[in-house]
Amino acid sequence: MKNVRPIRVVHYGLGATGRAVAQMVGRTPGLELVGGIDRDPALLQRDLGEVLGLEQPLGISVKDDPVAVLEAARPDIAIVATTSLLKDTYSQIQTCLRARTNVISTCEELVYPYARHRQLAKDLDELACYSGVSVLGVGVNPGFVMDLLPLILTGPSSCVSRISVTRVTNATLRRASLYQRIGAGLTTEQFRDHITDPCNRHIGMLESLHMMADTIGWKVERIDERIEPILSEEWVREGHFAIAPGQIAGIRQVAVGTVEGREAVRLDWQTVVGSQETYDAIVIDGTPPINLLVKGGLHGDQAASALVLHAIRPVVAARCGLLTVTEMPPIRYTAPSA
Amino acid sequence: MKNVRPIRVVHYGLGATGRAVAQMVGRTPGLELVGGIDRDPALLQRDLGEVLGLEQPLGISVKDDPVAVLEAARPDIAIVATTSLLKDTYSQIQTCLRARTNVISTCEELVYPYARHRQLAKDLDELACYSGVSVLGVGVNPGFVMDLLPLILTGPSSCVSRISVTRVTNATLRRASLYQRIGAGLTTEQFRDHITDPCNRHIGMLESLHMMADTIGWKVERIDERIEPILSEEWVREGHFAIAPGQIAGIRQVAVGTVEGREAVRLDWQTVVGSQETYDAIVIDGTPPINLLVKGGLHGDQAASALVLHAIRPVVAARCGLLTVTEMPPIRYTAPSA
Repeated sequence: MKNVRPIRVVHYGLGATGRAVAQMVGRTPGLELVGGIDRDPALLQRDLGEVLGLEQPLGISVKDDPVAVLEAARPDIAIVATTSLLKDTYSQIQTCLRARTNVISTCEELVYPYARHRQLAKDLDELACYSGVSVLGVGVNPGFVMDLLPLILTGPSSCVSRISVTRVTNATLRRASLYQRIGAGLTTEQFRDHITDPCNRHIGMLESLHMMADTIGWKVERIDERIEPILSEEWVREGHFAIAPGQIAGIRQVAVGTVEGREAVRLDWQTVVGSQETYDAIVIDGTPPINLLVKGGLHGDQAASALVLHAIRPVVAARCGLLTVTEMPPIRYTAPSA
Repeated sequence: MKNVRPIRVVHYGLGATGRAVAQMVGRTPGLELVGGIDRDPALLQRDLGEVLGLEQPLGISVKDDPVAVLEAARPDIAIVATTSLLKDTYSQIQTCLRARTNVISTCEELVYPYARHRQLAKDLDELACYSGVSVLGVGVNPGFVMDLLPLILTGPSSCVSRISVTRVTNATLRRASLYQRIGAGLTTEQFRDHITDPCNRHIGMLESLHMMADTIGWKVERIDERIEPILSEEWVREGHFAIAPGQIAGIRQVAVGTVEGREAVRLDWQTVVGSQETYDAIVIDGTPPINLLVKGGLHGDQAASALVLHAIRPVVAARCGLLTVTEMPPIRYTAPSA
């Protein structure tokens, strides 16, 4: 990147994911941290470098007024890592696009908004084109392991009749917020109440299903989706946390898409505390059949941050409008010296 | 594909791979077989539909004059499935490009010609642009399992320090020509002689290595490549064929690329007759590390044909010039009804 102006990056949302991406951006030659937006009073007015634990302060303080930050920083791109639901993230993205700033968002529903948020998708596409910039939703799931990677694996197969993906994560060593989200430790009654909150589940499963079916050209006639508790069969103790046998150890979410009367897509997502092995498995029923296993699974948090980082250059270079990962060249690692 | 003119396809080379692709093209709505080129006297002047074992004749006979076939058929694209070495395939591709025909070739060295055939690559790029068409080398290996797929798997990883791919194929049930190519049944002395023929090995390993290193931005300082026999430890009997203990059961080819003094890419390819398990394994040393296993491996012949078929639409739609799979949106299955 010698003699090339660095890409100016603003971080909108400095929670766990936003901070992880910003830390990597701060350490990547050719990328420059130029602003941080968050409404958390504990972060406001603090130096962005200090918030991120970088070696030195950046001389930029975290602010809660996105318009002012975008106006002052004139970024090439904003990383919007705020919420999972597009209805909540929409106006934040809109603000960035109006400031003629490219956007990458970790909003799960933005990864493939065409099926369930068609009008919002259309509006974002138009606004991005009007502003001459592009916007992409990216992540490890949705966005990679349960949709893009299976799609890529259909390439070496003809006559594909079914795609099945199983993602099983042992959450024992993960963040406490994940324990809470999957309902670990609840009773069956509490769990029923717990999952009425749409944030207490894997958001993006239907987006993955629609992305694959639409890209392949399968017309989905029916989707059967279910969410069920996984009960612990043993005592689980992790630090101060304990789950008794019969209490909730985790959550299982399954979506099955029917095409021409047959099961064409099966997505099975399980996150559980205990002794369960972690893995991702993809099966393509085709000629040849393809049977793939990611041993130890793809680490959700780390993988999502890396994908966002690696998407920065491709999104800045892309055509204007709303993009999806299926239409882009592969988002991959680039050496810092490159 | 209603109300859209079908894509007109000429098949240049009707060996095993060429025929397999042509059969699929003949059965795919939206694609139309419009010509067949081969110099095999057993095929010449025979009806292409009959040669391919299709339900009915096509009224097109196989010819050995590419210029005449391209002139008469006016195809959108030619599938060049002739030889593995670019020096041999080059003039055939040139003929197609001069006829303003897009080209997909299974020529292994065309998958990534920039490192070892820089001038030929430049010439093909210029000729394709001059003719307003595009040319792509595609295949399962090189082109997918030992290069593109590992590159895609670096997406969810930061700080990648090493990529290692192992492809082990049990060839027992495969084509006789493959037995011959891997030297199965030879003595160690015969094997030494056997591998002096550059076609009696996996062609494309250095292309895979360079594709990954260049795309990531790693400057490869040194490549250590070795080819060694795999000796049979047991009696192997398959039909009329037998291998005694101590005779050659197969071939192993390893290439290691060094970057900044450390091993950055390791490619290990083994094809062997006997009881060896078939698999592809990819390991990305990064954050997070990624460890992927394709159980049963990706079937080389079938997978290559499928990739060529699925590449037809993207190549016809692509920018002009010489393309590589790393810069294209994923080549994937499309439903016939789509």
